[in-house]
Amino acid sequence: MALKTDIINIARRARESSHLLRLADGKIKNKALKFMADAILDKKKQLLKANKKDINVARRAGESEAFIDRLLLTENRLINISQNIREVMNLDDPVGEIISSRIMPNGLKIEKVRVPIGVIGIIYESRPNVTADCASLCLKSGNSSILRGGSLSFNSNVAIFKTLSECIIRSGLPKDCLQMILTTERAAVDYLLSQSDFIDLIIPRGGAALIKKIVNKSRIPVIKHSRGLCHIYVDEEADLNIAENIVYNAKVQRPSVCNAVETLLVHKDIVVRFLPHLYKNLKAAGVELRGCEMTRKILKNIKQATEKDWSTEYLDLILSVKVVNSLDEAIEHIRKYSSGLSEAIVTENYINALRFLREIDSACVYVNASTRFTDGNQFGLGAEIGISTDKIHARGPMGLRELTSYKYVVYGNGQIRE
Amino acid sequence: MALKTDIINIARRARESSHLLRLADGKIKNKALKFMADAILDKKKQLLKANKKDINVARRAGESEAFIDRLLLTENRLINISQNIREVMNLDDPVGEIISSRIMPNGLKIEKVRVPIGVIGIIYESRPNVTADCASLCLKSGNSSILRGGSLSFNSNVAIFKTLSECIIRSGLPKDCLQMILTTERAAVDYLLSQSDFIDLIIPRGGAALIKKIVNKSRIPVIKHSRGLCHIYVDEEADLNIAENIVYNAKVQRPSVCNAVETLLVHKDIVVRFLPHLYKNLKAAGVELRGCEMTRKILKNIKQATEKDWSTEYLDLILSVKVVNSLDEAIEHIRKYSSGLSEAIVTENYINALRFLREIDSACVYVNASTRFTDGNQFGLGAEIGISTDKIHARGPMGLRELTSYKYVVYGNGQIRE
Repeated sequence: MALKTDIINIARRARESSHLLRLADGKIKNKALKFMADAILDKKKQLLKANKKDINVARRAGESEAFIDRLLLTENRLINISQNIREVMNLDDPVGEIISSRIMPNGLKIEKVRVPIGVIGIIYESRPNVTADCASLCLKSGNSSILRGGSLSFNSNVAIFKTLSECIIRSGLPKDCLQMILTTERAAVDYLLSQSDFIDLIIPRGGAALIKKIVNKSRIPVIKHSRGLCHIYVDEEADLNIAENIVYNAKVQRPSVCNAVETLLVHKDIVVRFLPHLYKNLKAAGVELRGCEMTRKILKNIKQATEKDWSTEYLDLILSVKVVNSLDEAIEHIRKYSSGLSEAIVTENYINALRFLREIDSACVYVNASTRFTDGNQFGLGAEIGISTDKIHARGPMGLRELTSYKYVVYGNGQIRE
Repeated sequence: MALKTDIINIARRARESSHLLRLADGKIKNKALKFMADAILDKKKQLLKANKKDINVARRAGESEAFIDRLLLTENRLINISQNIREVMNLDDPVGEIISSRIMPNGLKIEKVRVPIGVIGIIYESRPNVTADCASLCLKSGNSSILRGGSLSFNSNVAIFKTLSECIIRSGLPKDCLQMILTTERAAVDYLLSQSDFIDLIIPRGGAALIKKIVNKSRIPVIKHSRGLCHIYVDEEADLNIAENIVYNAKVQRPSVCNAVETLLVHKDIVVRFLPHLYKNLKAAGVELRGCEMTRKILKNIKQATEKDWSTEYLDLILSVKVVNSLDEAIEHIRKYSSGLSEAIVTENYINALRFLREIDSACVYVNASTRFTDGNQFGLGAEIGISTDKIHARGPMGLRELTSYKYVVYGNGQIRE
């Protein structure tokens, strides 16, 4: 069981180094991040060469162009990666923040202080940029990280990892606070997921199959993004221009992402005025509509939306449309089919807006804005390590603060318990 | 698989009712809690009778007196249970609190709002008071709860549950927001732990074996209290009177609880002045000391502390004692053996105090105060549902706020993503 021993050692060393890293001040962490941002550019030849190997293997394996595109590194993409690291460097250090503080009647001063979580394992698919994103966010938040990327991006990941690792050593931080599983053997993940003594949190980044596998196997807490099945409800009292802009934006601006809208709910009283004009514009942008019976009476020639459509995250230029009789029916539909990520109402009615915001239990609920804003940068959290659809620890966009825990620091002068 | 179906139905109904409960205002929740506090006293005859059955079974099964004591209900204990419910009623409702709020440059107003988690499963051992504590805390925080108590307290739990359930119905809240697994079959727990579609969080309350089993089987996030192996370090610059009071309090006041001290670390330069006097008092209180070599040179006739002692949570009148050469050695010992719950330093030295507070990574770190203060009430959080030794979601004492999640509520006037 050499592999198992290797994984245990990686996890143990990550834990040991985390005791140094969590005490590192912001200056030294930023020094490492600056080295990292520079090194990604300095080493571009080697990085592009390593990526080329992966691309060739993926092409021979007959991977889709979409897959190849996610895997591909270019000079511009490396510039982006470097800029992202620099942005993380410029964010406020979350460690040491006093979250709250109080003096108890017995004179004890109790501070709740933000601290790093400790060791975070990140398991992701074949997107080499995730290597740098996660490494920099974990480092800035004072957490040791153990990275395990997709096997088809192995050469790219290793090249990026080695580049970043050198920067960590050069900065004086312990090298083991950033580690990578340097094998594509699948059993390595299973061993990793059982190191609960050394790893505090697992963040999987990838498709539904990966997430499910990890949740089922992990003995370590997992924060996950299951999927994004987002709804927009256009109320009977909506400003129809605003509604059209928002639906168009939420579907067309970037259809492949989790916060794009998948289902449009329209109040029956405005559907005749609203849908035909919207449809004309969506059609021009290449969007296919699938509708309920009522929708199909208004828009001829569109497909019938089936039960399956209401529960499908298309991630594509497809939108299912349902006409509803009331806000209640819209809320009920969303409760049944939503993935709990982003939902929006378009309305000028105060009561309906507040009811929607209160009654919809999703990570982000909007009135008169596009669901596409569900994003760490858009929310002012800075770069994000992911978007959680869980309710434990972190919900919605996860920035640096969501990569922290807290401890209570208590100042006494001899207090004992009565 | 009738049992499996039963459990799935319980979980599903808990989820459905949670949509109503999370929207309930504080007034109606407090009404239910008032009914519950009253009913525990009104139904005392039935409750004591049901408890008597459990006690008889436990006696016949040869359970220890300590076990019987934890299981026992008396009139006074029912008064306590009722008072605890009333205290929960009087706590501020955490739901709806605006955690933070900001206006983005594009005019979007983003509020981070505290909301209930949803459905919480509580699995506990044979302490009937836990039934009422957990039911009231979950209700107040707007969460549906599913309770599963120890089999030897089954009759007591069912009697308390039925009493509380009637109050919930009478208040107008959905009855399914409080449920109990009405069977002692063990497989019920396994089915419960796999209902991740309907249950958001599992909180186990009990010994190490229970916790371990649950962590290994659960497909649902778990927040746990593993154990409390707490340390006090008496620094070379300690006020020795304060040090003695604190150590005595942390060991003797209530030795059976998780925040009692188990290991005392003493700086070599003060050990001769400090230990003999402390020992005299501890001995008078019935405390057994187990010491390192050096300790045994000073205190004759005490047992040698073995490797096992350093890692044992005695929960009893036993204290292991180690003489250390420096603060560094103390920190290293704590890092190696602590359970991460409560650690204290006694010192008058500013630098040593701050170093200890910063470098020890436990849920609660103290300077010049007893480790026994690690408690929701003592921290001003109100009643606690447990004390977490995890770092994800909640750390240390868990009150009402720790039973909540949050959502982002976003107010726009037509914003779309560029």
